[in-house]
Amino acid sequence: MKVKDVAREAGVAVGTVSRVLNDHPAVTRELRERVEKAMAHLGYEVDVTAQSMRAGRSRLVACAIRDFDIPRFALFIKEAEAVLREAGYTLLLASTTNRPDVEIALLRAFRRRRVDGVMMTLSDEQHLDVREALSEALMPVLLIDRDRIEALDRVTADHREGARLATSHLLDLGHRRIAMLVGDLNAFPSRSRLEGFRAAHAAAGIAPDPRLLRDDVLSSEDAYRATASLMSLAERPTALFVAAMDMLGGCLRALRTMGVAVGDGISVVAGSDSDLAELHTPPITAIAWDLAAMGRHAATMLLERMRGDEIERGRGLTVPTQLIIRGSSRPFAS
Amino acid sequence: MKVKDVAREAGVAVGTVSRVLNDHPAVTRELRERVEKAMAHLGYEVDVTAQSMRAGRSRLVACAIRDFDIPRFALFIKEAEAVLREAGYTLLLASTTNRPDVEIALLRAFRRRRVDGVMMTLSDEQHLDVREALSEALMPVLLIDRDRIEALDRVTADHREGARLATSHLLDLGHRRIAMLVGDLNAFPSRSRLEGFRAAHAAAGIAPDPRLLRDDVLSSEDAYRATASLMSLAERPTALFVAAMDMLGGCLRALRTMGVAVGDGISVVAGSDSDLAELHTPPITAIAWDLAAMGRHAATMLLERMRGDEIERGRGLTVPTQLIIRGSSRPFAS
Repeated sequence: MKVKDVAREAGVAVGTVSRVLNDHPAVTRELRERVEKAMAHLGYEVDVTAQSMRAGRSRLVACAIRDFDIPRFALFIKEAEAVLREAGYTLLLASTTNRPDVEIALLRAFRRRRVDGVMMTLSDEQHLDVREALSEALMPVLLIDRDRIEALDRVTADHREGARLATSHLLDLGHRRIAMLVGDLNAFPSRSRLEGFRAAHAAAGIAPDPRLLRDDVLSSEDAYRATASLMSLAERPTALFVAAMDMLGGCLRALRTMGVAVGDGISVVAGSDSDLAELHTPPITAIAWDLAAMGRHAATMLLERMRGDEIERGRGLTVPTQLIIRGSSRPFAS
Repeated sequence: MKVKDVAREAGVAVGTVSRVLNDHPAVTRELRERVEKAMAHLGYEVDVTAQSMRAGRSRLVACAIRDFDIPRFALFIKEAEAVLREAGYTLLLASTTNRPDVEIALLRAFRRRRVDGVMMTLSDEQHLDVREALSEALMPVLLIDRDRIEALDRVTADHREGARLATSHLLDLGHRRIAMLVGDLNAFPSRSRLEGFRAAHAAAGIAPDPRLLRDDVLSSEDAYRATASLMSLAERPTALFVAAMDMLGGCLRALRTMGVAVGDGISVVAGSDSDLAELHTPPITAIAWDLAAMGRHAATMLLERMRGDEIERGRGLTVPTQLIIRGSSRPFAS
């Protein structure tokens, strides 16, 4: 079955069939319907690979994130996928394992596959080779929770404000030795959280103890070790802000092993909400934001950019964060 | 830059370059290296789309599952992706939303995209249109936790044994009114769990009360409602087996709302392990199995099938389940 046969059946030129297959905007609705009817009649199935060869596009959108095992992030992917599917795109998902060389290899692979658009996180936005790969990407790239590459669109959460609220809450309760666990300070979320933590301290006229900050907490095991080491200090913290996403489990496991009671022994605030935070005894105070909305916005903004709408470069959209106060954060009792 | 130029640079025939590009097995290592060197020298970048047109393959493997927001399932995807990437494949991820029409549409889309292999769940293995779409798929399909299509390879967990262990444990503790929450009984996991539940009762010579079975529990909200309705019965259950995956949160939320204490008021066993189960007070007895191993096996078996190795059709691999006994399951006190 060939394009020629479809053209004959529809009574149009071969070029018209091609234009219909490539979604050319100049095709009238009447012509499109006539060609589609002929295709249906002949049982002509569009070969997407052949078609994307001609049109230079694949109807694929790639999403590359550090890791798939961040449960909360599934909400982002689910919503983004729904928006993209509605628009006729299939989502390609890949893990960067938070390594620049993998990010670069993926960008090249996406380009070779003629992916129409990419949404991704970056391990280090300042990395020169990653920057170069991005500039050679030849397709729209939207950054997820990253903010340093001004030419690219981005969707972020207001982690700075979330961390500021959490820290102020603990300071208001009388805590002065607040420990903080964060992830990679090269990346926007952890950097913003640290800014918020410091801003709250500055507003209260209090200098945080640098020995109570643990960064590069990227796994449940990291959180376990960081919590255990903090609780082994001669001068223990009285509150623990587990600001990295999804690290609460490791922290609670360490506190349990060391026999420290959440609430009475130490106040705890989680950097992201979860069933665990909500249903723990006592329930854990947590920062929340709408990851589903982030996914929706990311997909919508990327689609606009892919259509080549006349919009300024480097648009940023930020979803708000809020603090859900529960029983794990209590007044400091000296 | 054309294949012709590469052939000239390498001093080989154009057909040899083609064979190298298509990973033809008959190419000697020496020839492959000579061609690759010439390609590198000329800065020839392989156009995967053009290449897959010629070779009829895309170096894509698709994974289609019900939903992305099953946190535990991320372990499966992560391991499968690692194995596939190692073998030079990119993972395409799609959500079926557990609907046969979406499953059929996805199978067609994968075929059009010349996907090399598919691993997927199915909402209903008996669905005739889905069966037809599978038989027309023209690419290897491996089933994830499904067992009824004998011609297809499959990787399953031994849910029957897990449920049997959990139910026997509760019966041994003296419980006679054990409620069970399961998902879709058309699908292998829930069907197997119900079999295990019944087998344990039969072995103890006890007939389960059919009013204590709630199926089609597919979301946290479903689990909340099912638990609330069970606890509103005149003759309440004394134990709750939340056999559906990742439904523990909804169940615990309902018990808390109704003021029923886990352990003292009702014994609880979770169908899958989680941070929530482990760190709850009291910790929740749970069934565990190795989802990472399932992902690894699935990818490895699919790659073998894609290579066309001489292996029998419809191989099945089952990973074992175990019961982790914790404080939420206690002797029945009449």
